[in-house]
Amino acid sequence: MSDFAQRLAAVARDTEAALETILQAATDPAPPQRLIGAMRYAVLGGGKRLRPFLTVETARFTGGDAEAALRAGAAIELVHVYSLVHDDLPAMDDDELRRGKPTVHRAYDEATAILVGDALQTLAFETLGDPATHADAGIRAALVLALARAAGAAGMAGGQMLDLEAEGRFGDGLPLELSAGAIRQLQAMKTGAILACAVEMGAIIGGADAASRAALHAYGRALGAAFQVADDILDVESSADALGKATGKDAARGKGTLVSVLGLEAARAERDALADEAVAALAAFGPEADGLREAARFAAGRRS
Amino acid sequence: MSDFAQRLAAVARDTEAALETILQAATDPAPPQRLIGAMRYAVLGGGKRLRPFLTVETARFTGGDAEAALRAGAAIELVHVYSLVHDDLPAMDDDELRRGKPTVHRAYDEATAILVGDALQTLAFETLGDPATHADAGIRAALVLALARAAGAAGMAGGQMLDLEAEGRFGDGLPLELSAGAIRQLQAMKTGAILACAVEMGAIIGGADAASRAALHAYGRALGAAFQVADDILDVESSADALGKATGKDAARGKGTLVSVLGLEAARAERDALADEAVAALAAFGPEADGLREAARFAAGRRS
Repeated sequence: MSDFAQRLAAVARDTEAALETILQAATDPAPPQRLIGAMRYAVLGGGKRLRPFLTVETARFTGGDAEAALRAGAAIELVHVYSLVHDDLPAMDDDELRRGKPTVHRAYDEATAILVGDALQTLAFETLGDPATHADAGIRAALVLALARAAGAAGMAGGQMLDLEAEGRFGDGLPLELSAGAIRQLQAMKTGAILACAVEMGAIIGGADAASRAALHAYGRALGAAFQVADDILDVESSADALGKATGKDAARGKGTLVSVLGLEAARAERDALADEAVAALAAFGPEADGLREAARFAAGRRS
Repeated sequence: MSDFAQRLAAVARDTEAALETILQAATDPAPPQRLIGAMRYAVLGGGKRLRPFLTVETARFTGGDAEAALRAGAAIELVHVYSLVHDDLPAMDDDELRRGKPTVHRAYDEATAILVGDALQTLAFETLGDPATHADAGIRAALVLALARAAGAAGMAGGQMLDLEAEGRFGDGLPLELSAGAIRQLQAMKTGAILACAVEMGAIIGGADAASRAALHAYGRALGAAFQVADDILDVESSADALGKATGKDAARGKGTLVSVLGLEAARAERDALADEAVAALAAFGPEADGLREAARFAAGRRS
């Protein structure tokens, strides 16, 4: 395993432990066991934890508290998982498989899956508001604001809405013919905003100066875009076994992606250019930012 | 109109304006118009705004900033509305009517209603994290924590889960035979936690001392319980026209309420005793707390 892969795996283990602690605390006093069980099913035991990695790495090299970064990364992961649980619902993308397991509404039921997503989002903000995450309330409030802006109507939730519209869900049923620019905008909201937020939260915890934050912001946006183009390419190239979720779905829905609009080769070129752009944004940093540089290459080149 | 009714209506108008401002800000940059339209449909133009009233009144007489209280009240209303939108979904309570209008999934569609609820919850925390709500980050972070604890798996979302379980949704389809104590616990989570939180948020903004906060907490819990018993009684006694939503549904589902378990007379007696308990909790306060005293009587006696 490369150094990067080892570090990513180590943060994934730490994140798993942080999520376990957070979920344990949420069982006090005595909430319904079915809800807690389904929340644990959705959250634990899977995922590369790329978002927590970005938060932890950024906080580390900007001088932030490691434990705070881990809890903030866990919070962003809770929002990520909530969005997956809701996106998988029958009324949304109607997916049966997620991270190689039945989706929450298949393993449990729709009502439980709706409540699981709702409660995971709440738990994310509870975690960020909790003094256990950071002693400085100014940092806690800033983390809340950053995550809410990335997750809301102008970010992730808005991007999911645009995605459903692009499928033609609310019109005549025919997919919209989106330009490459419109697809990039949609993806920047749906996926990019939260990935960029993961970096931003690390910079908040590290108390990075304005110039560093601007550079890290540019890095986060480019990484997020690279990640999403890579995802579209994987949907065409990969197998469900390798990916742990259904593939070929975009094409089956006639959904516009950068692959369908630009072609596979141009999409690959854009993915690689975005990864280079992310790395270039870190030019002012030394070897301490190598973890982020590798994360950009990983996000662009990942096989699952 | 009584002084109380006038004051309630005035806060409802102020809350409407605050919600309008918050929703306007959420349209910047340019999120999907369908999502924003559906969020506005769900949030604006309805409701007694009892929760914001409790926050605003409590902040007023504990010496808190009025604008901060209004924005915090608006945030709690956003969480309340999100929970209504999701509870109304076909997979949950499957309601067609809310505040006299078609529910969001009927006026729009299920996917939009899921995203509306998700984005409203996010917007609530964005509002509380925003320096525009209060200059003191310590207060902002405390508001986030209070609302998250009231809304999550140990509060509102957990209570909704217990409610679905009580209907027999996940077992043999037969409603559970709950004791009066179990029903009270369920209702304290589902409805009481958020009402008590509305009072708590006012006390946080007002910087109330520990003794005042304990008294206000006791008030909030009793008021929340009175409100919910009154709701169960209205479900039996009122008409859909008067209530703006379907009635008789609890009985039709064979769902245990304090009315079905204790009988109508005993339920009325419990409702009135809880209102008295709420008023008694305010004994240490003078006439400045009269708004809260009347709110307790209103919550217990309301006709819609």
